[in-house]
Parts: sequence; structure tokens; C-alpha cells
Amino acid sequence: MKNLDLSLYLVTDKSDDVEKFLKTIEEGIKGGVSVVQIREKTAETLDFYDLALKVKEITRKYNVPLIINDRVDVALAIDADGVHVGQTDLPCDVTRKLIGDDKILGVSASTIEEARKAEKDGADYIGTGAVFPTATKDDAPKITKKDLKDVADSINIPVVAIGGITLENAHELKDTGIAGLSVVSAIMSAENPKKASEELLNIFNS
Amino acid sequence: MKNLDLSLYLVTDKSDDVEKFLKTIEEGIKGGVSVVQIREKTAETLDFYDLALKVKEITRKYNVPLIINDRVDVALAIDADGVHVGQTDLPCDVTRKLIGDDKILGVSASTIEEARKAEKDGADYIGTGAVFPTATKDDAPKITKKDLKDVADSINIPVVAIGGITLENAHELKDTGIAGLSVVSAIMSAENPKKASEELLNIFNS
Repeated sequence: MKNLDLSLYLVTDKSDDVEKFLKTIEEGIKGGVSVVQIREKTAETLDFYDLALKVKEITRKYNVPLIINDRVDVALAIDADGVHVGQTDLPCDVTRKLIGDDKILGVSASTIEEARKAEKDGADYIGTGAVFPTATKDDAPKITKKDLKDVADSINIPVVAIGGITLENAHELKDTGIAGLSVVSAIMSAENPKKASEELLNIFNS
Repeated sequence: MKNLDLSLYLVTDKSDDVEKFLKTIEEGIKGGVSVVQIREKTAETLDFYDLALKVKEITRKYNVPLIINDRVDVALAIDADGVHVGQTDLPCDVTRKLIGDDKILGVSASTIEEARKAEKDGADYIGTGAVFPTATKDDAPKITKKDLKDVADSINIPVVAIGGITLENAHELKDTGIAGLSVVSAIMSAENPKKASEELLNIFNS
């Protein structure tokens, strides 16, 4: 198992304003973000690649792992630290072969079966949700806190919770056995991303 | 330079009906299609991967190269014969590094400058268009027959013409120095894809 600090896992949203986007990521890291995942579902490949190179400059500066969502080619092209695949992306075992053993591989899994399969197929961690209602990904399966705990208890790799996590509800995820909180809007849309990150991390660590 | 027969280069359209889609490709190959490129701009990655595996069964059976549009990861995952990238996909030189020297690399280029850069950066062939009005890709740059010939004359790698080529207008591309005709609708939407392929190849070879 890789030595991964998943405690505050930032997933980015669409980068309409690149300068603001990069500034938000940097402020988030200053506030305690421990992993950054870039997720671009509609960007042209070249734009995704260019953006990922820019984000990598920041993550390298702060020594925080950079994960690319879905696009294994973009991850390899920029030599990212890892890839995150969902259930409609490349299969976990195929992805592991493409990226090799050293890179981080995360998999979205909302059931025990999916989580166990991902662990068997080479995942380093699991993202499980949505634990709360979310506008970012409204087609994500909804799960309960018990589901989350069941998934975390069923495997030996760490689980991060994702989906609608805010400063107001994050405390509800205590005692679910998770290794971290994964958020999009709670940091990307925060007026003060650094402060939001500090507060989320405080809640998680308390 | 790789030993590539580009004379009739089929680019697929969106695969709504997979069975019909596969049948059309096979009939096209029987009629003389010499290269197949799968182009899926909106599919989920897993669907693209599954489809590409199915098309590969056909192209291997007839010993025809299979090229994947844009998605280098899908190409590597299914061990396709090559990749085709446009000007908004991964850069040509980056793509060449990812796929290695043995796989085929095609690049869309509509100007002499783009074509020369692609040749320098490791492309095996160039796709140039749109030579005729097309509904498949209405944002493609429009070029004249003279532009096409100028691109073909400016580089040492082969050029295929693409964009709105039909049985009615294909003869207009004579004496442009191209190595082949690239079509989507002329075969994918043909009532008889085998016959359409035979006729297109006859026009090209005449």
C-alpha cells in the first residue's frame, strides 16, 4: 500500500477561469488539501493536458499528489502521480497495467462488490459516495452512512467519502472508518478556499 | 515510414446500433476499406473501450489496421495499431512518446505549417480537410483542392483527404497527390457499404 495522505482530497470542477482555478487549488493546499484530482469531463484533450501541466507545477511545489480523473493518457502525458477511474471509465485492472505499479490508482465504488473487485484489481484507494445530495454529479449513486462504513469495513485499502460534503455536514461522517473527505464545491466554490480547507481538515481530525 | 495502405480510410461515426455498426465496418472492409479509425467524441470511456475491442476482432480478421481517434489510453488499452490526433488533442510529439515508435500515428493538419510540424514530431501520415462540405464535423477548416495539393507536396509522409467525400465528388481529388480517401458517411450511411467501398476505391485507383 502506498503512503497516501487522503485526509482532505480535493476534486476540481470545470475550469472556466483558469487563473482563479489555479489560485483556488493553491489556497486549498495551503489550507491542508492533501491530494488534488483534476476532473474535466467536457474539455478538449489539449486543454485538459495544458491545464494539468499548470496544476502539476502547484502540486509539485507543495509536494501534494496530483491525480487525473478518467484520462489515463493525460495522466501519462504529464507524468501525474496517479489516475482515478469510475465504473464507466477504463476497467481498474486495465488501468493498472497502463500506469504501472508505482502510480496511484483510485476507483469509485458505491457497493461492497465494486470495492472488493477494485481492491483485487489493483486499486490503492476507493472513493465512495454520494454520501450527501450533490449538484456536481447528480447521477452518482446515493449511499447511506451505514453503506459507507460497510464498504470501508469490507476492504483493506483506504476509503474516501465524496458527494455533497460541506462544513455543515462533514461531522456526520465520524465513525465511518474513512481515510478522508473528498470535496469539490466546499473548496472550489468557497469564498476563502484556504480557510474552508483548514476547517474541513479540523472537522475530519477532531 | 511504415508500409501503410491508406487508399480507402474509413472513419466511423457514433455507434448507436452496435450490431449494425460492426456489420457496416466488416462490409466496408470486404469492399476494400484499408484502414479503420474509430472516432467517439461523446462515449463513456468504458463504452469506447468495449466497442474498440469488438472492432479489433473484425480488423484483425481481415488484417486491416485499427486506429483510435484522440484517446491514446483506449488505443493502448486495446493494443490498437495506432492513434489519430487532431490539433486539439494531445500534441503529436507527446503522443508519439506514449505509443512508441512501432504504432501508427496520424495527425489532422489543414495547413502546410501544421503538416510540417506533425511530420517533424513523428506523424506517419496526415489527414487533411475538409475538402468538401460535411455535416459530420462542421467545425473542420475548409480547404481547396489547391490547399490539399500544397500540403501533400510540402511533406514526405502520405496525406489522406477527408471531409464530405462522396461517390459523386471523389473524382475531383485526382492529381492532388493524396495517398487515399478518408470517408465517414459515404460508407457508414451507405445502403450497401461493401458496394460503396468498392466504388470509392475504383474512383481512387482510376
